[in-house]
Amino acid sequence: MSAPEQWHELAQQLRVDSIRSTTAAGSGHPSSSMSAADLMAVLLQDYLHYDFSQPKAPTNDHLIFSKGHAAPLLYAIYKAAGAISDQEMLTLRKFGSRIEGHPVPILPYVDVATGSLGQGLPISVGVALAGKYLDKLPYHVWVVLGDSEMAEGSNWEAMELGGFYKLNNIIAILDMNRLGQRGQTMLGWDGDQYAARARSFGWHAIEIDGHNLDQINSAYAEALAQTAQPTLIIARTEKGHGFSEIANKDGWHGKALPADMAERALKELGGERHISVAVHKPAAGVPATSSECTALTLPTYAKGSTTATRSAYGDALKALGAALPDVVGLDGEVSNSTYAEYFAKAYPERFFEQYIAEQQLVASAVGMQVRGYKPFASTFAAFFARAYDFIRMAAISRANIKLSGSHAGVSIGEDGPSQMALEDLTMMRAVFGSTVLYPSDANQAAQLVALMADQPGIVYMRTTREKTPVLYDPSEKFSIGGSRVVRQSDADQVTVVGAGITLHEALKAYDQLKAEGVSIRVIDLYSVKPVDAATLRAAAHATGGRMVVVEDHWAEGGLGDAVLEAFTGAEGQAPAAAFPRVVKLAVTSMPGSGQPAELMDAAGISAPHIVAAVKAFLG
Amino acid sequence: MSAPEQWHELAQQLRVDSIRSTTAAGSGHPSSSMSAADLMAVLLQDYLHYDFSQPKAPTNDHLIFSKGHAAPLLYAIYKAAGAISDQEMLTLRKFGSRIEGHPVPILPYVDVATGSLGQGLPISVGVALAGKYLDKLPYHVWVVLGDSEMAEGSNWEAMELGGFYKLNNIIAILDMNRLGQRGQTMLGWDGDQYAARARSFGWHAIEIDGHNLDQINSAYAEALAQTAQPTLIIARTEKGHGFSEIANKDGWHGKALPADMAERALKELGGERHISVAVHKPAAGVPATSSECTALTLPTYAKGSTTATRSAYGDALKALGAALPDVVGLDGEVSNSTYAEYFAKAYPERFFEQYIAEQQLVASAVGMQVRGYKPFASTFAAFFARAYDFIRMAAISRANIKLSGSHAGVSIGEDGPSQMALEDLTMMRAVFGSTVLYPSDANQAAQLVALMADQPGIVYMRTTREKTPVLYDPSEKFSIGGSRVVRQSDADQVTVVGAGITLHEALKAYDQLKAEGVSIRVIDLYSVKPVDAATLRAAAHATGGRMVVVEDHWAEGGLGDAVLEAFTGAEGQAPAAAFPRVVKLAVTSMPGSGQPAELMDAAGISAPHIVAAVKAFLG
Repeated sequence: MSAPEQWHELAQQLRVDSIRSTTAAGSGHPSSSMSAADLMAVLLQDYLHYDFSQPKAPTNDHLIFSKGHAAPLLYAIYKAAGAISDQEMLTLRKFGSRIEGHPVPILPYVDVATGSLGQGLPISVGVALAGKYLDKLPYHVWVVLGDSEMAEGSNWEAMELGGFYKLNNIIAILDMNRLGQRGQTMLGWDGDQYAARARSFGWHAIEIDGHNLDQINSAYAEALAQTAQPTLIIARTEKGHGFSEIANKDGWHGKALPADMAERALKELGGERHISVAVHKPAAGVPATSSECTALTLPTYAKGSTTATRSAYGDALKALGAALPDVVGLDGEVSNSTYAEYFAKAYPERFFEQYIAEQQLVASAVGMQVRGYKPFASTFAAFFARAYDFIRMAAISRANIKLSGSHAGVSIGEDGPSQMALEDLTMMRAVFGSTVLYPSDANQAAQLVALMADQPGIVYMRTTREKTPVLYDPSEKFSIGGSRVVRQSDADQVTVVGAGITLHEALKAYDQLKAEGVSIRVIDLYSVKPVDAATLRAAAHATGGRMVVVEDHWAEGGLGDAVLEAFTGAEGQAPAAAFPRVVKLAVTSMPGSGQPAELMDAAGISAPHIVAAVKAFLG
Repeated sequence: MSAPEQWHELAQQLRVDSIRSTTAAGSGHPSSSMSAADLMAVLLQDYLHYDFSQPKAPTNDHLIFSKGHAAPLLYAIYKAAGAISDQEMLTLRKFGSRIEGHPVPILPYVDVATGSLGQGLPISVGVALAGKYLDKLPYHVWVVLGDSEMAEGSNWEAMELGGFYKLNNIIAILDMNRLGQRGQTMLGWDGDQYAARARSFGWHAIEIDGHNLDQINSAYAEALAQTAQPTLIIARTEKGHGFSEIANKDGWHGKALPADMAERALKELGGERHISVAVHKPAAGVPATSSECTALTLPTYAKGSTTATRSAYGDALKALGAALPDVVGLDGEVSNSTYAEYFAKAYPERFFEQYIAEQQLVASAVGMQVRGYKPFASTFAAFFARAYDFIRMAAISRANIKLSGSHAGVSIGEDGPSQMALEDLTMMRAVFGSTVLYPSDANQAAQLVALMADQPGIVYMRTTREKTPVLYDPSEKFSIGGSRVVRQSDADQVTVVGAGITLHEALKAYDQLKAEGVSIRVIDLYSVKPVDAATLRAAAHATGGRMVVVEDHWAEGGLGDAVLEAFTGAEGQAPAAAFPRVVKLAVTSMPGSGQPAELMDAAGISAPHIVAAVKAFLG
């Protein structure tokens, strides 16, 4: 067969298989798969370089379906490549199958989970940054975009940074099939407008008929020839192309064909095929980044001096940079506040400014870890709320990323509530498999930063803007899942739990209460998730079941609820034999501007309020 | 004085006042204020139409500082307009002052809180939609943008929708001062590139020297003449313009001038002035929208039939639309899933498609409520995570918006985890002053939708994809903050709390346990926030302090923690005398695809798991 004939046959197979799997499942998105089948056939046959026997090979291209609902097409590609069997493909959407409704990386060929639109392109920017500037390998990132998702602002963050960093190793393919879930998209088939937008963001844009195999072929060749610009191929397509009963017709989004229609569709498409494609393997190559680690020397701080934990974060990240060549820094244009700038200045070749684009900040981290790097991404803690959907999806991607949020709580002071993270602990705790750390002093912060490097999953550290006293000797050891009992005696009547800035208030309260003859136990709960249930249970038991938890955070889902978790049960796990009586001191009114101490006092989380809460407990 | 002389004098006053207030505060952003002073002087003197004695007048223009850190400039404008005194202006950033570090609407002239960048323009789109299509009044929305924040994807969502809806009543002023917080912005002074981007998104773009008063004047006149396009004025400015020691110099972001520098600056700027501007008042006018409400007739569902609560949401919203002319519908291109389409079809003139741009979806709602409308915004519950920072800021704006998230939890089935909201209850509970509802049947859902309309603050309803049995008679009454004991006897040994889909599992568990001679109390906790503490405490007391909470949600911060909230104390509020022993059944492993029943069972939240948890409790 000629190349065009081969492409056509393969494209028809991809369509047929997208229909077969979705009809077998009784749900799914065949029409959104069929529109991009020609584009994928040419890619698979002639352009993709991927060793399916070694999905983690550093030289492999990356194929990311940003329009994750076209998963049936992706699985049809894997079948054609011999990576999965026809039989497994037909387990689409079945309980227990790897062939899920949207792609997830339990399939080794899938880099990241998609299905929340507008994430594939931003993540591709992270992979491409790694490819061009760290690995320095010639692989390409092929991204398949839907046209509806071009409305997501996150895609324009990716466009601007892709252009800014001249990521010519990205080839994005816009499957402009005109129809969204419930009608026409904002731009319909106005390819010129997409092209103008892409060009204004620094991209090379190519407009083609997405069902013309020769045009597709030429576009890929033209994209590969780019040396300083990423490419967006705007492919005009028809949703459901190839089956006249649904092609370019509204009302067929996310609907599997019933058996009789599927039969007619297969007939029109020329029936089942089982073409196997010998996908090009990439040339051999190794990443340019050194893999030689050296001994880690963490910064230390003199007990009794004062240092902000955000500053310790910066120092420790720089130290990590010296020891671990795979550590990468990312920041959202506030590195002089988060102190990521210490790393940036020491290791500029491994630091990537993400500007004020927090979705892209997290997406770049996800992309970096696809290539095995250890990304540390920082911004103000409040602004991670901007990227919550990316963090949620990163967990589904089983990604290993490290996030650091500075300027948490009312204790930031004069800037006011827009800059105060008061929901970050909540938000980060409710991420599957996450780790949430909130250090209370600089030596502890430095140690925890080091532990973050090897901790899998989404690892979040909340740091404090204000300088706080160094409580611990540099020799003291801390662990993820640990806590520290900082004040303790046999006479303790109430347990007070704090973390970060509030631990210091708890210590002031301890001194005052001690002077009045009241003894409290004070716990530094620096590991908010996982939480040290044993220590909390023991403390509650020792102090008559009386606990006060104090946090610079809203009352819902933060430190207080982390403490309660130590006492509740779950399936197969009994709750504590006795539940303590718990008073939560948290922020419950809207703060304004003011000095940190004024605001903490107004929020009811300062030492006097802890003292009052303890006394109220004791009647 | 000639107009240019007047403008100049006023601009210098705005600069001087920005320095005076920040130097008095010892912190703040004078340099970011000074760059835009000329732009604001011309606006205030000749273009803004605003009656400061009637800030809520429907015909007023709107002035939104998207670059909220330029708040000192905004306050200087208010002083010049006579809205606040010089003395109050100088309370900037002081505890208890209305003159906060970033603008908040406790000042009546501030429409919405800003300070999280990239929000002012999206919110302006909402205000402008209201102005052009609902109020049909000739007011304009003037938006002051920073150049750093143009990196936020949210601004491009606003650009695309502003263009799509032909919002010629928006005049956005880009203060292109080149310098961000920590160095040059991505585009520096490349005004052509901003202009190209704006044009490609359907905007009219004008490039000017932002310190040339005549050019500013001409640009405003040109912008006002637009009939079918919003305008972006790209004003090349210098950060710190007017004071040679800091003008266009890096390192002066967010820094107040020390007293000696401030003195030199005032000297260079010509000293203190106290010019008072008689700001143009708008012409009289009334909104085109009817204010006549009619009786509300909610949909009803026959007890024992099955209906998805998302469908009841759609029916009830349509009914609200008939009764209340100020109800507006917004959706993120999934209205055929959220069933906002029922409203959209009935009231197309009050429905605004926001496409797949969830940040804009929420921002438009915030903008609509600035003009007094009652916006109901819907998308998949999972995708509100995309807009979490907008929801956080909406609370700081004291905004009244209603959000509805469909497709929550593993019970959505085959689509897989990317489409499953498992953190929405957590996220929404941790919003200041929020209300969180999770109806368990269609009649209840309809009633709660009606209650949402008048509930202040951020009001969220989680709906269920699957059809569930109608449990309640249409005559039964429900309230925000309420709950319903659906199974109860004197012999109850354990309390089981569910909501939404899990209530139905709890009822199945009840039947099975009853057949085995075990009696449980079952509570429908449809109001997740505020929570009905009295009923929960009474139930715990009645059932030996044994409680099982079951939720289709992660374990952190959701229904389980809402239940615990009923037992903990806070400042001045004692915890329950006896704390129950609580077992939380929640989603604790990553779900995949499958049938709803399979996934609920795998997650450990189905009836058999509830039965097992109850039995484990009873030993």
